[in-house]
Amino acid sequence: MAFTFQINNDVVWNHDEKLLKKAITNTPKILKTLVKPIALGIVEKDDQYLNGYKVVPSSQSIEKLPEQTLGRDESLILDLGNHYVGTFNISIDSVGSPMDAPLYLKMKFAEVPAELPANAADYDGWLSRSWIQEEYVHIDVLPAVLELPRRYSCRYIELTVIDSSPKWKASFSNPEFLAESCVSMSQLPEFDITDEELKTIYDTSVKTLLDCMQEVFEDGPKRDRRLWIGDLRLQALANYYTFNDLSLVKRCLYLFGGMTTDEGKIPANVFTAPNLIPDDTFLFDYSLFFAAILSDFVEHTGDTGVLEDLYSVAKKQIDYAKNLVDSEGRLQLTEDYPVFIDWSNEFNKETAGQAVFIYSLKRFISLAEKMGEEELPEYRDLLDRMIAFSRQTLFDKAAGQFIVEENGEINTASQVWMVLAEVMTPEENKKIMQEMIRTQFPITGIATPYMYHHIVEALFVADLQEEAVQLMKDYWGKMISLGADTFWEAFKPEEQDFSPYGSPIVSSYCHAWSCTPAYLIPKYLS
Amino acid sequence: MAFTFQINNDVVWNHDEKLLKKAITNTPKILKTLVKPIALGIVEKDDQYLNGYKVVPSSQSIEKLPEQTLGRDESLILDLGNHYVGTFNISIDSVGSPMDAPLYLKMKFAEVPAELPANAADYDGWLSRSWIQEEYVHIDVLPAVLELPRRYSCRYIELTVIDSSPKWKASFSNPEFLAESCVSMSQLPEFDITDEELKTIYDTSVKTLLDCMQEVFEDGPKRDRRLWIGDLRLQALANYYTFNDLSLVKRCLYLFGGMTTDEGKIPANVFTAPNLIPDDTFLFDYSLFFAAILSDFVEHTGDTGVLEDLYSVAKKQIDYAKNLVDSEGRLQLTEDYPVFIDWSNEFNKETAGQAVFIYSLKRFISLAEKMGEEELPEYRDLLDRMIAFSRQTLFDKAAGQFIVEENGEINTASQVWMVLAEVMTPEENKKIMQEMIRTQFPITGIATPYMYHHIVEALFVADLQEEAVQLMKDYWGKMISLGADTFWEAFKPEEQDFSPYGSPIVSSYCHAWSCTPAYLIPKYLS
Repeated sequence: MAFTFQINNDVVWNHDEKLLKKAITNTPKILKTLVKPIALGIVEKDDQYLNGYKVVPSSQSIEKLPEQTLGRDESLILDLGNHYVGTFNISIDSVGSPMDAPLYLKMKFAEVPAELPANAADYDGWLSRSWIQEEYVHIDVLPAVLELPRRYSCRYIELTVIDSSPKWKASFSNPEFLAESCVSMSQLPEFDITDEELKTIYDTSVKTLLDCMQEVFEDGPKRDRRLWIGDLRLQALANYYTFNDLSLVKRCLYLFGGMTTDEGKIPANVFTAPNLIPDDTFLFDYSLFFAAILSDFVEHTGDTGVLEDLYSVAKKQIDYAKNLVDSEGRLQLTEDYPVFIDWSNEFNKETAGQAVFIYSLKRFISLAEKMGEEELPEYRDLLDRMIAFSRQTLFDKAAGQFIVEENGEINTASQVWMVLAEVMTPEENKKIMQEMIRTQFPITGIATPYMYHHIVEALFVADLQEEAVQLMKDYWGKMISLGADTFWEAFKPEEQDFSPYGSPIVSSYCHAWSCTPAYLIPKYLS
Repeated sequence: MAFTFQINNDVVWNHDEKLLKKAITNTPKILKTLVKPIALGIVEKDDQYLNGYKVVPSSQSIEKLPEQTLGRDESLILDLGNHYVGTFNISIDSVGSPMDAPLYLKMKFAEVPAELPANAADYDGWLSRSWIQEEYVHIDVLPAVLELPRRYSCRYIELTVIDSSPKWKASFSNPEFLAESCVSMSQLPEFDITDEELKTIYDTSVKTLLDCMQEVFEDGPKRDRRLWIGDLRLQALANYYTFNDLSLVKRCLYLFGGMTTDEGKIPANVFTAPNLIPDDTFLFDYSLFFAAILSDFVEHTGDTGVLEDLYSVAKKQIDYAKNLVDSEGRLQLTEDYPVFIDWSNEFNKETAGQAVFIYSLKRFISLAEKMGEEELPEYRDLLDRMIAFSRQTLFDKAAGQFIVEENGEINTASQVWMVLAEVMTPEENKKIMQEMIRTQFPITGIATPYMYHHIVEALFVADLQEEAVQLMKDYWGKMISLGADTFWEAFKPEEQDFSPYGSPIVSSYCHAWSCTPAYLIPKYLS
């Protein structure tokens, strides 16, 4: 995530070994499942599908794969039948005269059909080219079993022989994909959904979540393959209603809690290889969400040990943010500590940021109560001030909408987060959301399932269940009709070919923050 | 070698396990020598060098390599200081913010500077693209030691970061090249050459030979990396005067002797991985050279055991070829058993082929005498007939040159091979070569050191030592002045940018058949 790279090389980090040891103790065992391709595929143009491409089964049977010998510039596509995350191996032999030159092979791993015709050489975006899932391999002696050492996230595997020689061709057999996740579909609770469309959305969400559950809750197994707080919050919620892997949530909480700056701030994301490393990126809302994630966990598990270990970390995030609130209860954001809310920078995020603080502060106060916090009155006073300011200054009674103080801007994120923060009464919230629907739907300019999730949840919170379901179907359902096996990092219904990076080959098509129907449906519809 | 691919899938092969066991027993131990790059290099245009490029030392010291951090599209060149064959490893770390994307690295291994600016994507020649020595590697976690599993033949190693990320760069340290050969320079006999130019030619020839001496006498360690009879004959001769590794010659003789067709023919080349495999390529002159190589070996070593083991194989080659000679002594070549002589197909090879048969038959007869061959009179009769036909029909007295019977064509190869076969008297040979120099020098249209070797040796045989030395200097000396560290597969002095494949990136610049000054100088000049 994040369009803007932060570089903060001068940050001093404290590593709390006691907390990090608990993170390490909770490292999950990765389960491996053998997946065999179900078909040979062919890419076809079709405007009904994402970026105008689909993969259809070839007339050649996958059983006859070894007969599909490939020479210079010839290729074939293996279709795994669904999206998986894992490693790949395949047996290769030469057919014809003796092998008088190395085999030079290109392999492309694609989550969606549109990645297959995309040419890596054409990609010149700001995101690293190293994310493009393709490999070039020379094999000097055949027969051989090619075992690729890296992990891929894909449904389709394209094998292209860059060259053999005029005297022989390459023959492939026994392709194996070893799918990896720390959870299994067998852990899912029984859950009946009668609405077929919602059922498909739920199933696809669960698959998305499973593929992102590895040694941490990853944001995307293709990219960035790491633990971000914003994704973690939503993954943990979906996880409680599905696989319920508490150990993994614990691990991730301890990873953030164990690595803080000398000012007490937690990083927006952490790396776990070659060792535990905090990123030098900081986001105002993500830091505050630490308290929300801890509160969700304690509420779900009643685990007071984790609360006792991590309460002070949550408190530090709140305390740091508290200093940005003036005596009137107005949050004043700073440039070096941006609020994320959504990828888009085309709307003003100040009011939404104020609401995220209120949302998180409420959850922090519930933890502070459990901990017998001495400063509880100050936190309650802060909350009251921020709510009062929001109601009095940020709510435009005539418009029935929250505004941005500076310029009177009315935007979706402001309404959604103020509703989620429950700043107004339930009746007022409902009216705010109804007015938002009237004036701002169909939504445009929002590209992330992350923000769409919050809109849907705000509709549920505002008792607009029908509208919430409709938006879920319009958004996640649309991804399915465009061919999604798992839900995507980015999607704009009004601009279906949109990619934040200008090319599908670096986009992530299995992205954690899109898995939330696995939480929304069981929580609000059962 | 060979411009034309032969495909003979229906050949039935006999494997003589007794002979092949002796080939395996004589497999050499590969010696490994650690080579450290001596400099960072920069490619510069310079018409005085091969294909117009040279590498000069960078202003940055190799000692400061780790400080030369590379980001997207940045590269550096390591200069090993000489040509080597072996494996490469290097330590890599990230510098800057935490590593938030894989490192995507391209490595190019170049024997000569001209390979560095050549773009692999532009190569569309008939020879396999798989020979281009470049690799693409993703590294997910740094620091790491990158150990490439393949063997390369190179002096220069270019490292290009295709991408890191905007937040960090790659830093390289401790590059190591582990040079491989089955022989060591310490095995060389003392040998003084006062002529500086010849000494450089000799030294470069010896280095060429050493780099080609691996588990077999390879034709070229970059390409084709295998044992060809035509190269073996010249390598064995050079080896007797230098490293004198008799075991490797024996191994190669047994490899050919142990794999023959059901007609008794030996292949033009063999593969040794994944197991011992004869190629389905057959060349008339190469098959006959088996007798010559065996004769050279027996003469050099007096090893009658090898003669007894392999005599019958040599005899079968002679017998097969004998059937192509008519009662007048005229060789009649067939299309399915072509004579190589040289890459060029622009001259008629029939007379040269006739001479190669005479040359080989003479050596076979010397072996047959040692073996007490019963059919010796028939072989002597065959030799007499072929010589008589050559002298009477193929020699044009007026021109003082050998001709091609069919069209009267006079070409260099005919004169050279008839002189090497000593069909005429020494005085006549001298006149033939002098007339050839007068009418055909400076030589044009010949692209291989293989054919140039035979011209030079024919000059020595014809007692034209000064002219032989001059040609050696003009040809091998010219390669050195163009920048050669080892001698090349192909070189046309009159067309210095010539590549048989249209691009330097698939040419072999350390090629066995060019190493023969290491034989010619000690044999004829000491």
